[in-house]
Amino acid sequence: MTLVGVGPGDPELLTVAAVRAIRAAATVAYPVAREGGEGMAAAIAAPWMAPEQRRLPLVFPMVDDADARRRAWQEAADRLAAEVAAGRPVVLLCEGDVSLFATASYVLLALRARHPGCPVRLIPGIPAVAAAAAAGGWPLALQREGLLILPTPEEPEALEALLERAAAEGWVLALLKLGRRWPWVRPLLERRGLLAEALFARRVGWPDQQVMAAAAVEPEAVPYFSLLLVRQGCAAVLP
Amino acid sequence: MTLVGVGPGDPELLTVAAVRAIRAAATVAYPVAREGGEGMAAAIAAPWMAPEQRRLPLVFPMVDDADARRRAWQEAADRLAAEVAAGRPVVLLCEGDVSLFATASYVLLALRARHPGCPVRLIPGIPAVAAAAAAGGWPLALQREGLLILPTPEEPEALEALLERAAAEGWVLALLKLGRRWPWVRPLLERRGLLAEALFARRVGWPDQQVMAAAAVEPEAVPYFSLLLVRQGCAAVLP
Repeated sequence: MTLVGVGPGDPELLTVAAVRAIRAAATVAYPVAREGGEGMAAAIAAPWMAPEQRRLPLVFPMVDDADARRRAWQEAADRLAAEVAAGRPVVLLCEGDVSLFATASYVLLALRARHPGCPVRLIPGIPAVAAAAAAGGWPLALQREGLLILPTPEEPEALEALLERAAAEGWVLALLKLGRRWPWVRPLLERRGLLAEALFARRVGWPDQQVMAAAAVEPEAVPYFSLLLVRQGCAAVLP
Repeated sequence: MTLVGVGPGDPELLTVAAVRAIRAAATVAYPVAREGGEGMAAAIAAPWMAPEQRRLPLVFPMVDDADARRRAWQEAADRLAAEVAAGRPVVLLCEGDVSLFATASYVLLALRARHPGCPVRLIPGIPAVAAAAAAGGWPLALQREGLLILPTPEEPEALEALLERAAAEGWVLALLKLGRRWPWVRPLLERRGLLAEALFARRVGWPDQQVMAAAAVEPEAVPYFSLLLVRQGCAAVLP
């Protein structure tokens, strides 16, 4: 079985290895949020799939109930292992990278627990953060800087503390899952003079991609599928 | 002009977009450490290059002298801009991702300063950190964790402080440029009980790739081109 990162949206951002693995599969599995849903990973990889391949949508409900999520991972692991047992090469598609905030990671852990003999290979994918930086022509980290990738904190105080820590340490921040937090994140960045230089990216690689200075994003927006890159100060030696 | 991330080593880890850009180029530029050197990015992309393409090695000396480095970035920018001016589509290859501790970032900044009218496109690449995690079957970040990617600190005290901060915040660490620091990093990790679970990766994607538990790396080794993934504790809900 192969867990395949398909990158953030553009079918051209799959790796050659990912395309090869998808083409070699008898069954292509992919996450959906509900029965009958389409699935973003499947949409990204669609140009590389063939009509005769068996499709196996796996429901991962987006709910707070930890038990429901755990049951979904376990059921996905069982269904994938059953494909392998039936002699059908199977891939599980996964948006972005296969190890970074990835559904594939939970499935991998469930497979190890429930089907320890099942061989699993992982193919990395382009993380949304890297695609956003490339689209914006925005160096992520230089020299002795660090890059800290994490979900946007839930509270303004936590973001303030994070920004101060990052400034003191020379870390660039990649804040994921901006969404409904933007209405308080924006004035906070503005107060700290960070709004002009921060890069906002939404649905990178998709036809409706938005990549722009954070200052250009409306204060009332609730931008789902978006992230923010924040650099405070510059590396010492630049051309 | 296109700046192309070619991933960490395996030619199959280039994206479809990267392969397409390389094939469409009249000139393929790539970094070398000295005149006549081979260049790792060129070696990675070699299967995708054609004999009739012009090759343009650009020397980026690995020296401490900031002026010498800056001159190299400026000269590279000038030579790339000259290709564009001569009507020759040119790509600059770059190991790993094109925005993360990348030679391409410095060239990009030099191009903006010296040739602001020159159009530049960036194609992201698989970062070594993602490839290492995939090779080791090692989830990089789950749920509300963070991932902090940075060069290994120069001093044990700085690494101690970083490990404490990461443990308190729930951040996974990706420590790059391990090399000559390993002889003091290893006992430090051992003292903190982190050696067994940390993942060591060297030359990921190359035929001589090593991916193993950090505990298996000899105490006296000086592993260049290597990195370490350190997770302290686990995310709360696992399958």
